[in-house]
Amino acid sequence: MGKVRVETFKYLDETIKRMRSGGLLLVSVGRDGRPNVMTIGWGLLGVMWRKTFFVVAVRHSRYTHKLLEETGEFTVNVPGEGMEEVLRYCGTVSGRDYDKFAEKGLRPVPGRDVRAPSIEGCPIHYECRTAFKVEVEPGALERELEVEIYPSRDYHTLYYGRILGVYARED
Amino acid sequence: MGKVRVETFKYLDETIKRMRSGGLLLVSVGRDGRPNVMTIGWGLLGVMWRKTFFVVAVRHSRYTHKLLEETGEFTVNVPGEGMEEVLRYCGTVSGRDYDKFAEKGLRPVPGRDVRAPSIEGCPIHYECRTAFKVEVEPGALERELEVEIYPSRDYHTLYYGRILGVYARED
Repeated sequence: MGKVRVETFKYLDETIKRMRSGGLLLVSVGRDGRPNVMTIGWGLLGVMWRKTFFVVAVRHSRYTHKLLEETGEFTVNVPGEGMEEVLRYCGTVSGRDYDKFAEKGLRPVPGRDVRAPSIEGCPIHYECRTAFKVEVEPGALERELEVEIYPSRDYHTLYYGRILGVYARED
Repeated sequence: MGKVRVETFKYLDETIKRMRSGGLLLVSVGRDGRPNVMTIGWGLLGVMWRKTFFVVAVRHSRYTHKLLEETGEFTVNVPGEGMEEVLRYCGTVSGRDYDKFAEKGLRPVPGRDVRAPSIEGCPIHYECRTAFKVEVEPGALERELEVEIYPSRDYHTLYYGRILGVYARED
């Protein structure tokens, strides 16, 4: 049941589909090595600067933001069947208050290319290192979206994660 | 042989595959209505701010940059078989010096959602309006990539195109 390294975009369709229905699990890690996990419903995938990228967006208020500012390394995990409650929980509570891995019995598996672990039970995951980041500044986004997404001015940082490896369980 | 509107990410795999082998055709249009086309090998697709996006990168020196600064509207066209010479040509010469549509006998088809036209003969295309843009500033990108991509300091602007429609020939 071990994972093998696969072609970067082999599971692109599956990844985008799961992102849009239920979400993906973003795992980051701080300098102290303690990981945190949050549910994400947004992300961009593709090619930039001749490399492959997974871009994730994290609001400044999030605990994940603090960890990404510390190390810039993360994994994006495509959940397996029956993980709906994990997705709900990890999109609701903060890693400042709870150890979500412990609370939900999630087992971290050490990353192969980054310090952030992946999550056992997720059949596909991406290992990424931030190579570029963008602050969404007030007034920069199309007005209709700015009003809808930032009523409380809790802006996102966009982390451009260079994809160092993609791993999947291929049974 | 007309195109129909399709689900946004129906041809995601095909689009990324063609982007990585040969390239896609980015069509922009200026305030004067004259379109220009350039070949692109980079791009990001996915979800951001609850909408779907196609992000393209254009260097400041490009004629396309001038046009996108004027209108922000563009189409991304997935080429059909036998368009290798068009891809080569549109990645080599500048729209400042040549009318690439005329030179290569490309027929512009009016956009349905944007002012920029699509290209007849391309079986799939995306119609996009810029909702956000990012300047790649000196020193912001991971050093290894900055050295490789920007030796002459001709930086990119990243245009986040909100996907207003995707159209495909479905025979």
